[in-house]
Amino acid sequence: MLFSIQHEDPDSKARLGRLELAHGPVLTPCFMPVGTNATVKAVRSKDLEDIGLNLILSNTYHLYLRPGIEVIEQSGGLHRFMAWKHNILTDSGGFQVFSLSPFRKIEEQGICFKSHLDGSTHRLSPEDIVDIQRKLGSDILMPLDFCTPVGISREEASKAADLTTRWARRSLIRWEKDFSPPAGQLFGIIQGNFFKELREKSAEEIISLGFPGYAIGGLSVGEQYEVFKDYLRFTAEFVPSRYPRYLMGVGTPQYILEAVENGVDLFDCVFPTRTARNAQAFTKVGPLSLKKESNKFDSGPIDPGCSCSTCINYSRSYLRHLFKTKEILAAMLTTYHNLYFIHQFILAIREAIRNDSFTDFKQNFRRKYDSRL
Amino acid sequence: MLFSIQHEDPDSKARLGRLELAHGPVLTPCFMPVGTNATVKAVRSKDLEDIGLNLILSNTYHLYLRPGIEVIEQSGGLHRFMAWKHNILTDSGGFQVFSLSPFRKIEEQGICFKSHLDGSTHRLSPEDIVDIQRKLGSDILMPLDFCTPVGISREEASKAADLTTRWARRSLIRWEKDFSPPAGQLFGIIQGNFFKELREKSAEEIISLGFPGYAIGGLSVGEQYEVFKDYLRFTAEFVPSRYPRYLMGVGTPQYILEAVENGVDLFDCVFPTRTARNAQAFTKVGPLSLKKESNKFDSGPIDPGCSCSTCINYSRSYLRHLFKTKEILAAMLTTYHNLYFIHQFILAIREAIRNDSFTDFKQNFRRKYDSRL
Repeated sequence: MLFSIQHEDPDSKARLGRLELAHGPVLTPCFMPVGTNATVKAVRSKDLEDIGLNLILSNTYHLYLRPGIEVIEQSGGLHRFMAWKHNILTDSGGFQVFSLSPFRKIEEQGICFKSHLDGSTHRLSPEDIVDIQRKLGSDILMPLDFCTPVGISREEASKAADLTTRWARRSLIRWEKDFSPPAGQLFGIIQGNFFKELREKSAEEIISLGFPGYAIGGLSVGEQYEVFKDYLRFTAEFVPSRYPRYLMGVGTPQYILEAVENGVDLFDCVFPTRTARNAQAFTKVGPLSLKKESNKFDSGPIDPGCSCSTCINYSRSYLRHLFKTKEILAAMLTTYHNLYFIHQFILAIREAIRNDSFTDFKQNFRRKYDSRL
Repeated sequence: MLFSIQHEDPDSKARLGRLELAHGPVLTPCFMPVGTNATVKAVRSKDLEDIGLNLILSNTYHLYLRPGIEVIEQSGGLHRFMAWKHNILTDSGGFQVFSLSPFRKIEEQGICFKSHLDGSTHRLSPEDIVDIQRKLGSDILMPLDFCTPVGISREEASKAADLTTRWARRSLIRWEKDFSPPAGQLFGIIQGNFFKELREKSAEEIISLGFPGYAIGGLSVGEQYEVFKDYLRFTAEFVPSRYPRYLMGVGTPQYILEAVENGVDLFDCVFPTRTARNAQAFTKVGPLSLKKESNKFDSGPIDPGCSCSTCINYSRSYLRHLFKTKEILAAMLTTYHNLYFIHQFILAIREAIRNDSFTDFKQNFRRKYDSRL
């Protein structure tokens, strides 16, 4: 069985789960760091492992364009290529086609787009997208979907959701054709923009196709926090409890707590790694801007309660200096801390669920975290 | 005793030595990586330790300007600041004043220069330079010297060498004033540009002052390789065998072999780390340019005979991809390899000296290394 629930919080939808993936079991809730170009930026695979992570996300669109799928295939797959022994989820590339490509065309057959790197034209069908992720050797594959921005018309959103369903069906057929465990699992993606009836329709259609897990797409794309919460709750409820739920693109502590509360098991975001490179570090009392003058003589660690190697060895004063001098080590040490922090946060969430105290945990964490420094 | 010779090569001046420094013994010959801004670029202190390094160089000029000596002092010194438990040699900053500052004036009293960062004016005497390195907590301190470029007149070179001697005397007086072991050792620096009689005069004057160790300055500054060799041999011979000899700014395998052959014990250079960031990796058959198309599908390591974590885990194909996508991990992995390679090279040199086979080792290494790929 792919997914088993180990414990359910009595006061919310939060649950502890276990995913049996091809590269080992993954406990949930689980945060996946993003390794766009076959590397989580500024950390080694070994560092991720030391932190305790065993599921990361990588971006099909980027890998397809550079170094190219045949390079990774010839290296023995993505795991071998990036020296990562644990699990990898790859996205479909749909989101990147919409956000990065200078030109794209959506057709029934698939997508046509120009590379943001060299302008070359590419056509990919939903079937191609499954095949590409198979070649990468992904543990969780995502089908091509039609991502839409906030603010489009109901008609546009409806068309996009319908096409997403048709593409999902084709992806599933392609994936099932040669599937044999323990190969990668293909998750369905629920779209529908910010129209509840479309969300409901998309959820019903996608779930009726019978994927082993479900993702909620098209949230956390710039909408208000209250809208996000509303649509998250509304959409998550359609996914039967026995399936793993994955909320795409979510990564701040606040959003993660909201997702867990609504029964989400997996989430990914560049937030912890990107903000680290921009000198922002997580602490239990909110984000800390390491470049600030006030850190100049501060010989204390980023977070006095953190036992990561960055906090054990290095001061705010030193990290500020590294950022000021644009040293690579600044990104290395802060990224490590942020990933360690977020993983410890996830471990604490799991512990709270296990103790039937998730709601208390959430309130206490938020009270401290929102107090700022 | 600061320095003891453990073995001498019968066919050359090469020798095995041991330096007893404040942060532990250092075996020589020893290559010091450069940690300009209190970090060897793109590696952690822990990585340096894992490689087996226990003496690094840091730049007084850079640290003085940023983060400022008071920041490091308040952090408990440079070792604590950068989380490095082993030894640190700091240069005097003289070289950087000449190479980086947009304005400088040499006076009997000391140097006056403008910061290359913000244009602010600074005046530092030889005594200040000793005091600054004391505050940093350096294990080996260098006195302020007057560095001169290739091609100046005999008169200019003579004046510079004379001033270097007067500054050396003042530095020594300042250093001896409060010296008590196991504090940092102050080395003398021999100058004299490319005039043998000036080199000889500088060596005699500096050595007569009675430092615990001697550096050869002003070589490897752009002169022809044959000129370098000639002046290295000529200058090194003036330093009595019982003292540690340090050749400043030397870091390619070829130059290191030449230095060791002439009885040099210590050398430093940005070469292994800077070239790593520029995608050039050491191999036993010469430097490898990782960006080259020929690496695209090469699933072998940088150097098949290397057991560093980069070569064990990652392929040329992957590293090429990381450089092409400008990933931070590219610099991290290649810097680690280059430092590991150069340290293994030093270990092999020591072993060869121990076996009375340094000359053979040098020839064999050069034959392979110069064969290129």
